Amino acid sequence: MSGNATSATVLGLGDMGSALAGALLGAGRPVTVWNRSADKAKPLVAKGAVAAESAAGAVAASELVIVCLLDDASVREVLGTVSLAGRAVVNLTNGTPRQARELAGWVAEQGGTFLDGGIMAIPPMIGQPGAFVFYSGPKDLFETHRAAFDTFGGSNYVGEDPGLAALHDLALLSGMYGQFIGILQAYALIRSEGLSAVEFAPLLSGWLGAMGGFAEEAAGQIDSGDYSKDVVSNLGMQAAAFENLPLAAADQGVSAELLAPLHQLLLRGAAEGHGAENLASVIELLKK
Amino acid sequence: MSGNATSATVLGLGDMGSALAGALLGAGRPVTVWNRSADKAKPLVAKGAVAAESAAGAVAASELVIVCLLDDASVREVLGTVSLAGRAVVNLTNGTPRQARELAGWVAEQGGTFLDGGIMAIPPMIGQPGAFVFYSGPKDLFETHRAAFDTFGGSNYVGEDPGLAALHDLALLSGMYGQFIGILQAYALIRSEGLSAVEFAPLLSGWLGAMGGFAEEAAGQIDSGDYSKDVVSNLGMQAAAFENLPLAAADQGVSAELLAPLHQLLLRGAAEGHGAENLASVIELLKK
Ligand SMILES: NC(=O)c1ccc[n+]([C@@H]2O[C@H](COP(=O)([O-])OP(=O)(O)OC[C@H]3O[C@@H](n4cnc5c(N)ncnc54)[C@H](OP(=O)(O)O)[C@@H]3O)[C@@H](O)[C@H]2O)c1
Ligand SMILES: NC(=O)c1ccc[n+]([C@@H]2O[C@H](COP(=O)([O-])OP(=O)(O)OC[C@H]3O[C@@H](n4cnc5c(N)ncnc54)[C@H](OP(=O)(O)O)[C@@H]3O)[C@@H](O)[C@H]2O)c1
Repeated sequence: MSGNATSATVLGLGDMGSALAGALLGAGRPVTVWNRSADKAKPLVAKGAVAAESAAGAVAASELVIVCLLDDASVREVLGTVSLAGRAVVNLTNGTPRQARELAGWVAEQGGTFLDGGIMAIPPMIGQPGAFVFYSGPKDLFETHRAAFDTFGGSNYVGEDPGLAALHDLALLSGMYGQFIGILQAYALIRSEGLSAVEFAPLLSGWLGAMGGFAEEAAGQIDSGDYSKDVVSNLGMQAAAFENLPLAAADQGVSAELLAPLHQLLLRGAAEGHGAENLASVIELLKK
Repeated sequence: MSGNATSATVLGLGDMGSALAGALLGAGRPVTVWNRSADKAKPLVAKGAVAAESAAGAVAASELVIVCLLDDASVREVLGTVSLAGRAVVNLTNGTPRQARELAGWVAEQGGTFLDGGIMAIPPMIGQPGAFVFYSGPKDLFETHRAAFDTFGGSNYVGEDPGLAALHDLALLSGMYGQFIGILQAYALIRSEGLSAVEFAPLLSGWLGAMGGFAEEAAGQIDSGDYSKDVVSNLGMQAAAFENLPLAAADQGVSAELLAPLHQLLLRGAAEGHGAENLASVIELLKK
């Protein structure tokens, strides 16, 4: 199948790699798979995949090589054993922008081309509505293989710099983990009085939906660097009122550790003369 | 107007107190107002309010006394100068559950009845769709004055314990500030490459909407205390993968301080044997 534009190789058959290989097979593409522990190939072979004996053999089988291993170290380890000349390496292993940039340079030295990706889905969502993947690297390479990528979910190309897919991925994950912080802290307070989180959930979801408007509001301020316009609840007022959160948490026997750094940041922003500005101005203090 | 069930007194005419008094006037209710700095009463007097010369005079004018001052200390200071016998004190000043409980006890000693409230709106939203207020304290007192409260927005009664309105208010604020943490961190990463926050905003909003499902998912787990069912991305995996966030932030010249305590909490949860459970299990570690 080597040289056939519609075939693909998948290296790494953990939960995610298996889901990716399954999506390609489901779209009728010839797929060669390899995994360190060979038994994980069996369900895919049953669906029509060819299992290679080695990573090198798997990479030799298709021009398009999808890599989905544990982390950057495992990617380096596996790719170090294969010949990448003429291969299009698409790394969907989670990593940092720097790791993606360095890997792109190394793959080029081996005579391969490189795209990095960030998967915004869990394995059962692959190929389903809502799943999408960020890609970065050469635009023409993305276009060449886009039809294969589209079997995973939406394909979102974010730029030539190979680090940008990981950057977008980690930015969204940061957003999600912040939201988790808020939800955990809210429920910790509610549960401190033995109240039901399930009953409180619709209220919390509705409130987060309404307050999520901050993402749109803050964006324009952040791009312009001007936090002085249309100020409603200014930073100084919020920094002062924030005090009630740790106070109440302490009274209720709940740790306020998850929100403490934001409190400190608001106080610092106000102390540095930004009290009359919009809250989003504290983003400037996150620059190192 | 004393004794007239539809009249009300508002103590405190900052942005919020003025909005509350304006809503009552807009509904055609007789309103007596008082503010430490007397000039803030003028726009309300122009709309038909009666300005009292003292807080004591204002409280004498109506059975229903709405209090909206800066903080608990200012409420104590002002209410210390008036006679509360037979008055229904409704405190809409932000505070903690403990402050509300203590104030309720003190008002009862003065011969008054007491409800505490938490306003989930900014002043321009008062009386508009989306605004709502939590109330806690005696249910019958809430029902007696509910029609007046409904002029502010939705009225959400949350229980007899006077501390519960502040608890609900602070739980939602905690949720909101967590969401702000995530949004700020996401934009800090995006801006570190000079990309546009405005262009990234729809993606971030869509993602937060989708990931907000965590509020519903986690609620049942938290109420039951069982974090072992339907585990998709377990705590151990997330604690390990989280490492990329501070690593990438450091490479990009962005502080990861806002997410650091969650990272530590995930690592602690995994280290304490909950690695195979759902992420929400870390809420147990917030109990002190
Ligand atoms: N699962 C998700 O929800 C999700 C979502 C987005 C992104 N991702 C990313 O997708 C990647 C894979 O995730 P997953 O869920 O499939 O993980 P997983 O189920 O734990 O699978 C890990 C895979 O990496 C292989 N591996 C680990 N170390 C190796 C080494 N030194 N040499 C060769 N192979 C090695 C494993 O092989 P063995 O079978 O031999 O151990 C296995 O195939 C990760 O980077 C993850 O962050 C996952
Ligand atoms: N604004 C919001 O978005 C919002 C939202 C929800 C809840 N709240 C809560 O509503 C309350 C009022 O907020 P606001 O926005 O109206 O604040 P504000 O505009 O700063 O007004 C504060 C009010 O408190 C009075 N005050 C302060 N210290 C006093 C004292 N020692 N004695 C007598 N009066 C005193 C001020 O009187 P002077 O005019 O004489 O200074 C003024 O009337 C606060 O608890 C706030 O947290 C506000």
